[in-house]
Amino acid sequence: MTKLITTVNEMSNLSRKIKLQGNTIGFVPTMGALHDGHLSMMEQSAEENDVSIISIFVNPLQFGPNEDFETYPRQLEQDAEAASKVNVDYIFAPSVEEMYPDELGVTLEVGRMAKVLEGAQRPGHFEGVVTVVNKLFNIIRPDNAYFGKKDAQQLAIVEKMTRDFNHPIKIKGVDIVREEDGLAKSSRNVYLTAQERKEATYLSKSLQLAKQLYDQGERDSENIINRVTEYLNSYISGEVQEVAIYSYPDLVKQNNITGQIFISLAVNFSKARLIDNIIIRG
Amino acid sequence: MTKLITTVNEMSNLSRKIKLQGNTIGFVPTMGALHDGHLSMMEQSAEENDVSIISIFVNPLQFGPNEDFETYPRQLEQDAEAASKVNVDYIFAPSVEEMYPDELGVTLEVGRMAKVLEGAQRPGHFEGVVTVVNKLFNIIRPDNAYFGKKDAQQLAIVEKMTRDFNHPIKIKGVDIVREEDGLAKSSRNVYLTAQERKEATYLSKSLQLAKQLYDQGERDSENIINRVTEYLNSYISGEVQEVAIYSYPDLVKQNNITGQIFISLAVNFSKARLIDNIIIRG
Repeated sequence: MTKLITTVNEMSNLSRKIKLQGNTIGFVPTMGALHDGHLSMMEQSAEENDVSIISIFVNPLQFGPNEDFETYPRQLEQDAEAASKVNVDYIFAPSVEEMYPDELGVTLEVGRMAKVLEGAQRPGHFEGVVTVVNKLFNIIRPDNAYFGKKDAQQLAIVEKMTRDFNHPIKIKGVDIVREEDGLAKSSRNVYLTAQERKEATYLSKSLQLAKQLYDQGERDSENIINRVTEYLNSYISGEVQEVAIYSYPDLVKQNNITGQIFISLAVNFSKARLIDNIIIRG
Repeated sequence: MTKLITTVNEMSNLSRKIKLQGNTIGFVPTMGALHDGHLSMMEQSAEENDVSIISIFVNPLQFGPNEDFETYPRQLEQDAEAASKVNVDYIFAPSVEEMYPDELGVTLEVGRMAKVLEGAQRPGHFEGVVTVVNKLFNIIRPDNAYFGKKDAQQLAIVEKMTRDFNHPIKIKGVDIVREEDGLAKSSRNVYLTAQERKEATYLSKSLQLAKQLYDQGERDSENIINRVTEYLNSYISGEVQEVAIYSYPDLVKQNNITGQIFISLAVNFSKARLIDNIIIRG
């Protein structure tokens, strides 16, 4: 039976008790509006740990002033039901006041890694992410924490924070879960119109095209980016905001591809900004 | 028998084992050059916890470019002997490379609280302090951590960081330990000439004067500061860098004193900058 916890104190005391009993904790931080991408992380967490905990917290710090903090889907009851089916033991769902009782005196700054891709489009976003993840790590003290590869830049930054701060936590990247037609699952897919939903399948198709070019030996990033951009523009009404190739997980822009990379897309539809990516081992 | 540990991995695994056995950990972070002020913290740590751990690490991040990082006293063998006498179980003494294996991707920023007093004189100092303390907290995961009230601003900032980051750690402020003539114990006292050492007793005497004025009903900060400054200037050859009155632990400058305050001094002698303070409950 999944149990709901809403205060930091109760969660912190519970985690301490779980650890004292010698049990391992798996942790999946989310903002709720759970979809199959989240659920696959929770399945892995339940499989690999004695106790599986998720957080549901729409974190104001990671939203920009013109972003969708107010309208972000909130559906705790439905989420709790979904979580119980994948053997989540505890849902930590604190209020904003509980997480940020007063002004922060010590804040986190993300360097170079937050100045590109999503971070360049969303100033302050990754600072908000690592701020809340660091807090959640200390409250829950998991052995393993699960993050989706869909947010590949986030995964890389969280891994770096974890190393920099010496959190004794293993960060596990979980593969992107896709609809049958290839669209990456996302809580923001609900914002798409019916027509945009159809077009959105071309995001993953364009990444397959990129992979194909890479497999054929193409190593000039510009050539791949141009082909992908043309392809997307010919199929979708949304604006192609960025097609980019960076090393992974270092996040250094690649002109000539060497080593492990990820190719990432960001597309603006009328009410949804979708991202997708593919990681290619060098 | 006090045991020396030099790697993050060994320390982290050991702490995990101690916690799994249900034992509490007391932690005293130091930069070594242990004096009675440190030892009184260690005595308290050993008394209040099952296992007592100290760190000895001269943290480059908290020294300014013109400060004494290179010449800061390093005397591990002597420190280990002193620590063993106050029942320290483990000394964690990592190298700089062990603590900072590569460039930090996520850094800490201290706001308003670091812009006054010591922080104003030593830009970046408190960022360096909280960076290393946060890392040490995650490596050692103590139940209780001990900090001296001599560095009152540091204690307030570490307490704030601990709350902001939700570290499940109790921060304990330990009273200033003084020489018989009143001089606050400090690793930097060794830099004083014989003449300056005599003059240095007037720091604590001037704080007693301030306390006396307060007890007589004086609540105008400027009057107290002027009297203390005059007093110091008439007895010491060093430069009185700052006499200040701030609320504690909020660190807001007080013109008219209300509530709990601390009165702090900073004096530059030829080769040593000494600080001292007194906390007065409102």
